[in-house]
Amino acid sequence: MKLYSFFRSSASFRVRIALQLKGVSAETVPINLRKSEQDEAAYRKLNPQSLVPALQDDGHFITQSLAILEYLEETHPQPPLLPKAPAERGRVRSLALAVACEIHPLNNSRVLNYLKDKLGADEAARDAWYRNWIAVGLAALEARLAAEKETGRYCHGATPTFADCCLVPQVYNARRFKCDLAPYPTVVRIEGACLALPAFQRAAPEQQPDAV
Amino acid sequence: MKLYSFFRSSASFRVRIALQLKGVSAETVPINLRKSEQDEAAYRKLNPQSLVPALQDDGHFITQSLAILEYLEETHPQPPLLPKAPAERGRVRSLALAVACEIHPLNNSRVLNYLKDKLGADEAARDAWYRNWIAVGLAALEARLAAEKETGRYCHGATPTFADCCLVPQVYNARRFKCDLAPYPTVVRIEGACLALPAFQRAAPEQQPDAV
Repeated sequence: MKLYSFFRSSASFRVRIALQLKGVSAETVPINLRKSEQDEAAYRKLNPQSLVPALQDDGHFITQSLAILEYLEETHPQPPLLPKAPAERGRVRSLALAVACEIHPLNNSRVLNYLKDKLGADEAARDAWYRNWIAVGLAALEARLAAEKETGRYCHGATPTFADCCLVPQVYNARRFKCDLAPYPTVVRIEGACLALPAFQRAAPEQQPDAV
Repeated sequence: MKLYSFFRSSASFRVRIALQLKGVSAETVPINLRKSEQDEAAYRKLNPQSLVPALQDDGHFITQSLAILEYLEETHPQPPLLPKAPAERGRVRSLALAVACEIHPLNNSRVLNYLKDKLGADEAARDAWYRNWIAVGLAALEARLAAEKETGRYCHGATPTFADCCLVPQVYNARRFKCDLAPYPTVVRIEGACLALPAFQRAAPEQQPDAV
């Protein structure tokens, strides 16, 4: 199994956490987003979306981090990263998507580049944009995680799920951009519980072979 | 079963298609995004993300359109909207996420409002933004759909899947914003195949009780 990945990519980080939690080893193929290696012809041929991560396994090539998580869950069911009951699975997926669809896409580097190049947004305006979508997204997550009885030590119950695989990389980015996390105590508490686990530690950006 | 929905919401449209394909009836609870009803206290209490769609079923409340599609697939498996093999399921989910994570989040009304209010983008700049992300996203989808052998009458094989549930509403938006679709012949061909089905027709925005 090969994981096309960039150490700082938040979506790659999600997949690395799932691989670690399941004890599945994958060779890292670094795609340096800073050098635009995702746009090179060889990689575009594999993945016309020019995004990381991508997983190569047994002749199959799967893109999009949440599709990769589902694939890993189906091919390596233990330990499960989704609960059993459909409504509970729905809750976990909904929390994961609240990060993957509502926060992260707005803060991709290609979006920040568009703001700079086409709309003339200076660094302060781009940072404000970045922090705004994190704040809106984390506030909604905090409201759910604080209120819903299914929240446990982790986003859903007593073991990590897809939701934690998505939350931790997003909070990592929030810290990197010095967002104020005080309004999100439940989010921060769950992040702490996750980061106490070796799987999350080993998946961290600094621990990757392509980290600089 | 109740679907909190707005006729013009692209994510609501995805869920309506899946409900129609599966022959599951749900009462529509209209949430008028133009009147900001998603931000009213009663709805925020149900859904702190203030987004549509949301599905209420048997005491459960599920948000995020792709989580709802998975929930429907698990609770109403016939006809299936995902293939059986994990790698094929991965391909379908990846195509669906290519719409849901890479195109749609950038063109939400709250994003367009931010561009206007905070970055001073005029209507022409906002329309250019909208069309840019559709063009980037549909070009990547076209490259995959045209090249991959799994593409059939629909995005994946001979029956509609999650991928078609996401593609058709996105192309609907592209048409509404008068995007040039000539570069995406495979996308347009698949849209045509879908729109020939009564399920897709009945799910269309104009057919909804809250359409104006």
